[in-house]
Amino acid sequence: MKNYTSIKDISSLSDIIKEAILIKMNPFEYSELGKNKTLVMLFFNSSLRTRLSTEKAAKNLGMNVMILNIDKAWNLEFEDGAIMNMSTSEHIKEAAKVISQYADIIAVRAFPSLVDKAKDELEIILNSFRSYATVPIINMESSTAHPLQALADAMTISELSKKKTQKVVLSWAPHPKALPHAVANSFVTMIQQLGVNFEITHPEGYELNPEITKNTRINYNQEAALKDADFVYVKNWSSYKDYGKVLIENPKWMMTKAKLGNAKFMHCLPVRRNVVVEDAVLDSEQSVVIEQANNRTFAAQVVLKRILENL
Amino acid sequence: MKNYTSIKDISSLSDIIKEAILIKMNPFEYSELGKNKTLVMLFFNSSLRTRLSTEKAAKNLGMNVMILNIDKAWNLEFEDGAIMNMSTSEHIKEAAKVISQYADIIAVRAFPSLVDKAKDELEIILNSFRSYATVPIINMESSTAHPLQALADAMTISELSKKKTQKVVLSWAPHPKALPHAVANSFVTMIQQLGVNFEITHPEGYELNPEITKNTRINYNQEAALKDADFVYVKNWSSYKDYGKVLIENPKWMMTKAKLGNAKFMHCLPVRRNVVVEDAVLDSEQSVVIEQANNRTFAAQVVLKRILENL
Amino acid sequence: MKNYTSIKDISSLSDIIKEAILIKMNPFEYSELGKNKTLVMLFFNSSLRTRLSTEKAAKNLGMNVMILNIDKAWNLEFEDGAIMNMSTSEHIKEAAKVISQYADIIAVRAFPSLVDKAKDELEIILNSFRSYATVPIINMESSTAHPLQALADAMTISELSKKKTQKVVLSWAPHPKALPHAVANSFVTMIQQLGVNFEITHPEGYELNPEITKNTRINYNQEAALKDADFVYVKNWSSYKDYGKVLIENPKWMMTKAKLGNAKFMHCLPVRRNVVVEDAVLDSEQSVVIEQANNRTFAAQVVLKRILENL
Repeated sequence: MKNYTSIKDISSLSDIIKEAILIKMNPFEYSELGKNKTLVMLFFNSSLRTRLSTEKAAKNLGMNVMILNIDKAWNLEFEDGAIMNMSTSEHIKEAAKVISQYADIIAVRAFPSLVDKAKDELEIILNSFRSYATVPIINMESSTAHPLQALADAMTISELSKKKTQKVVLSWAPHPKALPHAVANSFVTMIQQLGVNFEITHPEGYELNPEITKNTRINYNQEAALKDADFVYVKNWSSYKDYGKVLIENPKWMMTKAKLGNAKFMHCLPVRRNVVVEDAVLDSEQSVVIEQANNRTFAAQVVLKRILENL
Repeated sequence: MKNYTSIKDISSLSDIIKEAILIKMNPFEYSELGKNKTLVMLFFNSSLRTRLSTEKAAKNLGMNVMILNIDKAWNLEFEDGAIMNMSTSEHIKEAAKVISQYADIIAVRAFPSLVDKAKDELEIILNSFRSYATVPIINMESSTAHPLQALADAMTISELSKKKTQKVVLSWAPHPKALPHAVANSFVTMIQQLGVNFEITHPEGYELNPEITKNTRINYNQEAALKDADFVYVKNWSSYKDYGKVLIENPKWMMTKAKLGNAKFMHCLPVRRNVVVEDAVLDSEQSVVIEQANNRTFAAQVVLKRILENL
Repeated sequence: MKNYTSIKDISSLSDIIKEAILIKMNPFEYSELGKNKTLVMLFFNSSLRTRLSTEKAAKNLGMNVMILNIDKAWNLEFEDGAIMNMSTSEHIKEAAKVISQYADIIAVRAFPSLVDKAKDELEIILNSFRSYATVPIINMESSTAHPLQALADAMTISELSKKKTQKVVLSWAPHPKALPHAVANSFVTMIQQLGVNFEITHPEGYELNPEITKNTRINYNQEAALKDADFVYVKNWSSYKDYGKVLIENPKWMMTKAKLGNAKFMHCLPVRRNVVVEDAVLDSEQSVVIEQANNRTFAAQVVLKRILENL
């Protein structure tokens, strides 16, 4: 693996899931692989799970980790040919090349504006690092993708699948704030390769990018979609068409024990209790959110391992 | 040791002091004990000594350390059954369980409001981590206790004691800001077990929680209290009765060389010079504040060692 | 080496350059030297290159690294005898001695005010750490000096020198903000020892501290100065005479491909493109700014190595 900026960087999803599960069984087996190798983690946005799990994964492999929070003190310029006489003090061309001098792998988190769709979809920060860095890049959640989360989710579904063909439903949930599409996008892209029976349910107007959902079944009737589901992945996102807008906050879309049936409940976290999902679900045995969070370590670790092996 | 959230988690104070002093003599003896173990340090408030000494202690034991400053970007919900449609974005139930996936031990710092006594005494943050985390918890200073400081103080007194029965005085000092009771509380709880001659002196109205001081002698006459003292621990705290209020700033309570006599001067630091204590004391051989700070490392290390041995 | 706060702490520049280049060829050769040793890095100002390169250098030597950003929460008092009843909460006397308990080496970054020349030149923060810390101090850029940058620059010039006597020019550049003199000062002090043909060019009024430039040739005619240069170090600084002021922003002082001739282009970064230097220079083979940034690691590493050997 050269970079991991999208689910599409995985050549075989089933192979990488198997390898991640092996790593989980013996997380310190490759603790010499990362010796004298450095992961630099760059956060343009704050992080809990991604930060801790990725740092832990790197250390499990024996890597050194250096973390930099990119705050207002460090305004990067991304435009080619810019005359930098305003607020930006360093061009990404220098920044990416310089950080590459200190890193064997660079991991980047950079959220979307949710204001300018075209600009967000250009993934300027992530792609600029891919263009100008001279070392591999890992996406720790960008404007449109969160492939480390999706890989952890794939592991979790694989580990917990009891029958051959699973029914997996991605169910939109209400949320008071406008949230990105990254988690939903990568989940959809991942699940399309997993060979399951997959359906998305959300209110009209919340259609995800059709270039990502492609011919995935979309059902505006949540109850019908959830019928006989084995895994229900609940997630809010803001409107894609009416970009970044919160169109409705209808509490009837909240996930409940009654709606869930016998399915496993999945969520990437953080989750707002009794808004996105009721307590009864999260506090039940059907919730696998903590296991998803645990798998974040091993998803990051298999990605780092493959990149290290390819250095 | 399962957790270290209070001095009361120590089964034998004299035993742990002896062990801490042995560790100080040979700090890298157990550098394999923490191999492949991770300490996650969570700071809801800023920290200098506690942060550096605890991180150093963990690394002396061979542990990995991951540090997270909890800022406004990450508003935790602590109330059971809350409908999280306002500012809180993650419930402590998930947060504690998730961080437990990445940590073998979690250390938490969370100061009091000094506004709502009842709420502060519930120690909501610390106790929520104890309730929901699935790994041991260390208190790096909570609303009402600072047991790592008190253990370092106990070491310092033990190391410097020349006669069998020491007279130790806790002497209140003026300070322009309202400060917590945590250091004083844990010092009192610790000293009650140390078998010394102990007295507290402060102006009327500054009585600490009587459930903590119990039958400890309280003397409103500082001069009388300090007579023949071997160790004088100076510390400001705000009023407990008139909760969180600065009742007086009377400079006559400042510690001076004249008042100190031949006693050793102790303070947890940071200390405001010439407000809490005059320069002549801090710059004299009688001050042991730097040794106290040094012992913070070994207090943390003995606690981590005992918890690691119990994992 | 006892401390590294100035270029003058180097006994032989040519020897340390040779050693740094050897380290660069085999950066992990001394990975046992720093075992169980701790570098504490203190940032009063933000940092990208210095932070990552110094942390990496320390880890290449097997050291532990602990990083503390000194923000508003931690107001240090530097004045002797101060009555600390205002905003400062800890005196440097305690802070430096305390941090020395947790560190084998302390590295400090503290920028100038650019308002009060006399105060800036006292280097209060750096010198207070030198006075009160009980372990060696490394300067990660102070009010008036940036010796780690200058050492990396010396390495870069040595590595790329093709003839015996090089002509090196330090060329002032325009910049919208008032910048410190530290980089220029240390570059001048270093280059005076390097045995090259050296000249400084800048507009009138931008003379650096004459106690630093001494008898170095100063040329107000940029074109004449650049003639036949082998290395051109471009850097903005604010006025020294009219302290901290931006006197002119004349774009004709910007470095261009045409002016540069066949010389190598050097800059400490971050650099404002098309203000300090045009794209055509930075994007050409003549620019060695990335190599300078790379050498920051080995400059820091040779300094840490020498201090560790002297502990």
